[in-house]
Amino acid sequence: MTEKVYIISGTNRQQAVSLQVSKVYQQEFEALGVDSEIIDLQQLPADYLFSGLYENAGKNELVNGFREKMKVGHKFVFVIAEYNGSFPGVLKAFIDGLEFPDSFMNKKCALVGLSAGIQGAVLAMSHFTDILNYCGAHVLAEKPKLASIGGHIQDGEITNERYMKHIKKQVKQLIEF
Amino acid sequence: MTEKVYIISGTNRQQAVSLQVSKVYQQEFEALGVDSEIIDLQQLPADYLFSGLYENAGKNELVNGFREKMKVGHKFVFVIAEYNGSFPGVLKAFIDGLEFPDSFMNKKCALVGLSAGIQGAVLAMSHFTDILNYCGAHVLAEKPKLASIGGHIQDGEITNERYMKHIKKQVKQLIEF
Amino acid sequence: MTEKVYIISGTNRQQAVSLQVSKVYQQEFEALGVDSEIIDLQQLPADYLFSGLYENAGKNELVNGFREKMKVGHKFVFVIAEYNGSFPGVLKAFIDGLEFPDSFMNKKCALVGLSAGIQGAVLAMSHFTDILNYCGAHVLAEKPKLASIGGHIQDGEITNERYMKHIKKQVKQLIEF
Amino acid sequence: MTEKVYIISGTNRQQAVSLQVSKVYQQEFEALGVDSEIIDLQQLPADYLFSGLYENAGKNELVNGFREKMKVGHKFVFVIAEYNGSFPGVLKAFIDGLEFPDSFMNKKCALVGLSAGIQGAVLAMSHFTDILNYCGAHVLAEKPKLASIGGHIQDGEITNERYMKHIKKQVKQLIEF
Repeated sequence: MTEKVYIISGTNRQQAVSLQVSKVYQQEFEALGVDSEIIDLQQLPADYLFSGLYENAGKNELVNGFREKMKVGHKFVFVIAEYNGSFPGVLKAFIDGLEFPDSFMNKKCALVGLSAGIQGAVLAMSHFTDILNYCGAHVLAEKPKLASIGGHIQDGEITNERYMKHIKKQVKQLIEF
Repeated sequence: MTEKVYIISGTNRQQAVSLQVSKVYQQEFEALGVDSEIIDLQQLPADYLFSGLYENAGKNELVNGFREKMKVGHKFVFVIAEYNGSFPGVLKAFIDGLEFPDSFMNKKCALVGLSAGIQGAVLAMSHFTDILNYCGAHVLAEKPKLASIGGHIQDGEITNERYMKHIKKQVKQLIEF
Repeated sequence: MTEKVYIISGTNRQQAVSLQVSKVYQQEFEALGVDSEIIDLQQLPADYLFSGLYENAGKNELVNGFREKMKVGHKFVFVIAEYNGSFPGVLKAFIDGLEFPDSFMNKKCALVGLSAGIQGAVLAMSHFTDILNYCGAHVLAEKPKLASIGGHIQDGEITNERYMKHIKKQVKQLIEF
Repeated sequence: MTEKVYIISGTNRQQAVSLQVSKVYQQEFEALGVDSEIIDLQQLPADYLFSGLYENAGKNELVNGFREKMKVGHKFVFVIAEYNGSFPGVLKAFIDGLEFPDSFMNKKCALVGLSAGIQGAVLAMSHFTDILNYCGAHVLAEKPKLASIGGHIQDGEITNERYMKHIKKQVKQLIEF
């Protein structure tokens, strides 16, 4: 049995496109018979920045549910929306509250970047690759850049064929990685 | 009259070394007759991640105090502690809640990196330079790397002469930048 | 008198678009009454990698002409074409043969990125900013990303209005930087 | 049979430490029964920058020997000395002359950084990871940072135990990657 893949919807923005893209990934894994689960940062407790980090790490039951999944999972997809030229702050804060090094050491990650503009979160994914590598996780070379995402997603479907081709390729690679 | 410099203590960790280093910078500016003020991210509201961002940006009075300072300031020092190979998530979340582009366009920034380990937050400062440049702010080339900071600060004083030499040089450069 | 600006056409490819873009910058500086000169890496000696670096640095008369200009100049524009996801190797090799730290310490640089594809050399410029900052040079925040450049330059003129708006803004900023 | 690993000594400096470190890696692979070969950039033709790139790519017999090895190899170690805050220009120029995408697509790479100073080429390896990922190659998370290398290598042996521990770990990981 192929192990479960965790898909991190990397923003806490309400009705975020990141969550829609996460669901597209989930469908792709399902189509290949692979179980997956979405970790939606919108579900973090409101006071996560203070209740989930540093001396409080591990003390919040709600946060511990997230921490446990990241600890048991071995393969992750990070859906990364571009904010201010990098990843959302909440995504890095999420990483900062996880167990180190058990959450990432020798695990396998796939990154996908979204942006309203034309960059496709390329710098965000470069920065996040540095972070994951630092934490011991390997990152797939294929990192789809879904630029101008608003015009390429409709009713939960990604309508851009090239985007879907990259996503399907990456999903297969992560399963075999 | 030289304008006020804002020093951002870029973590919300209690009793953080970042705040001590921020105070060292404040003393250096004072010694040169330049007014400065520390913006301590430990003072953000506990629910900042949800009350201060996106559709709620600008609605929280406490957060608005921070936003106003970033808007009126023209010169900033960012004190950046290395967490998981980059800057703290809270620092990026702070940026994500500011007014764009008025908070940074054509402003001048200085970065200083702290780390428990030997890297001195070099990747964190590289990532953060990308973000500030994206937002329109210029960054001083000099970016002191205060590696193994725990062994080089005592009673609020930085005891490493080389570190202080870099800090003094950078403070002068920011005033003239 | 405003000092001369040196424009580095950062590739040694024959008939490179980088050289055409360099000439566009030269015209813009001229229109504002500022003298400029293009340093074309196509003019490096064929054996530069071996005759111009390390123990041979400074021994090649032809190379010394380039080195002298980089030493006396205080403001530079680097025209950076995207190759393999970063800047051309020859551009970094050029930097590696210059005098350190006199070539860059406290100088001011502007970067412009070109690409055949849609990225506009954004990673190349991020990497190159790290290098210039390391060498002591300040980099303007504004870094025009001239994506799909082939379709936006004709007879030596950049035909994309948005591109020209960013270039004109950057040229003015470099003069005042 | 485990396939041959190619080790790229990423500088053309004479008597470079990079070549010594490459030989250390070769010994480690040999100890685990894995064949390896060093590709020494010091052996590139003197006029490589002009004879090996762009319209001349593939026309130089000497260069073609290098190109062929990079094409048939599936696992690479890149030994990266820090020059001016990043990798040596010659290393990127080497990449620029290879066949795209056959040289790197879906291949596996390990990076090791050397520096005279304290950074251990951390930015160089971050930049080079971006390049390899762009070219389609996966990069191991473990990237040993051999800072102050001059004091940790003697008679071809790396004398720092921690450095050797990281190298041994990485060599095993690359074999299994």
